[in-house]
Amino acid sequence: MEKVKLFATWSSPFVKRIIWALKLKNIEHEIIYEDLANKSPELLKYNPIHKKVPVLVHNEIPICESLVILEYIDETWKDARPLLPKDPLDKANQRFWAKFSDDQVLPSFYGYIMKQGNEKEEAKETTLAHLKRVEQLVSEKKFLSGESVGFLDLAFGWLAENSRPLEVITGLKLFDEDTFPNLCAWRDKFLEVPAIKESWPDQETLIAKYQEINLSKGK
Amino acid sequence: MEKVKLFATWSSPFVKRIIWALKLKNIEHEIIYEDLANKSPELLKYNPIHKKVPVLVHNEIPICESLVILEYIDETWKDARPLLPKDPLDKANQRFWAKFSDDQVLPSFYGYIMKQGNEKEEAKETTLAHLKRVEQLVSEKKFLSGESVGFLDLAFGWLAENSRPLEVITGLKLFDEDTFPNLCAWRDKFLEVPAIKESWPDQETLIAKYQEINLSKGK
Repeated sequence: MEKVKLFATWSSPFVKRIIWALKLKNIEHEIIYEDLANKSPELLKYNPIHKKVPVLVHNEIPICESLVILEYIDETWKDARPLLPKDPLDKANQRFWAKFSDDQVLPSFYGYIMKQGNEKEEAKETTLAHLKRVEQLVSEKKFLSGESVGFLDLAFGWLAENSRPLEVITGLKLFDEDTFPNLCAWRDKFLEVPAIKESWPDQETLIAKYQEINLSKGK
Repeated sequence: MEKVKLFATWSSPFVKRIIWALKLKNIEHEIIYEDLANKSPELLKYNPIHKKVPVLVHNEIPICESLVILEYIDETWKDARPLLPKDPLDKANQRFWAKFSDDQVLPSFYGYIMKQGNEKEEAKETTLAHLKRVEQLVSEKKFLSGESVGFLDLAFGWLAENSRPLEVITGLKLFDEDTFPNLCAWRDKFLEVPAIKESWPDQETLIAKYQEINLSKGK
């Protein structure tokens, strides 16, 4: 009897990719929502190094780091809707771009929103350059992973999910249909996938969350 | 006919893990040494995103990011001395700790050496805490990957290779046999593996390299 628990917060971009993977593969699971201001003893026990979500606990064994968890899920439930291809080169490409998402695009994107003055301008230029790379990448196929949603789409899902709420709250146009037509088309197709759609957060709630973050920063 | 080229510098900790993997698997390869102050058009063509080494070029197709390259090598030449285990949980653990090496241990270790004043003290505390984690990890088995050298040993190989030269040049004891007996024993065992030993850089040359870096920083 498999027992799968996921330690989560409702808005973490790293958590959402795991929820989507579990849904795509029809893996029964329980989600435990953490209050990061008051972390549970279980979270601290299961992820003593980073003390962060997501943590997947499979039959009492914890696995941490969201991209590591995605690969674990794909290898453990390997017959149910594969997320990564079998070809080593395709795999390497998806791993490379997933790392690019987390190390480059995500920090510059949030920097663009949160920073001020010159730093904001710099983050904007970097973000646009990164988005151009992703635009080019998605132009070659239907989804980032290929003909159907896979590992790389889940890795970049945070971009699809957060772009509109962040545009509303910041008044910044993060990506538009003229400059990034393929990226916008990808976002819309991604949202149409049932497993994604049914766990899409209410956009008003996301907007309220970002407003709260901005207020707590004294702006 | 397989053609494998590796774009490299002789001292990069990210390059060395690839050279060790190619040697462990007996993969014939050519190494192209780059001058990072004057990068070759080939390097810029093959790694336009990061413009960094290592880049593995396999039959004219480039693969970038050292941990991604290691997995690519392991999956492509899968019968020759596997680097990663088959079990998804063991794999996830090795991937988690390899990421910990690159995101946490390596930056704090170099910070400890290069920074000054309070920042140096902070980096020292962080580095010691990280090394304690690795000490604990290696205590459970012969090598970090298990009974023989594998993925996680190659990922942490930079620590084995650089610790003594860096101690000589900085006068800082980075890890010693009293505090980190298992880590020291692992370093010695790692160095005894023929594929590692034969590509171990001359320690005097490494020392000279770090002296040059320090001089160029005006210290």
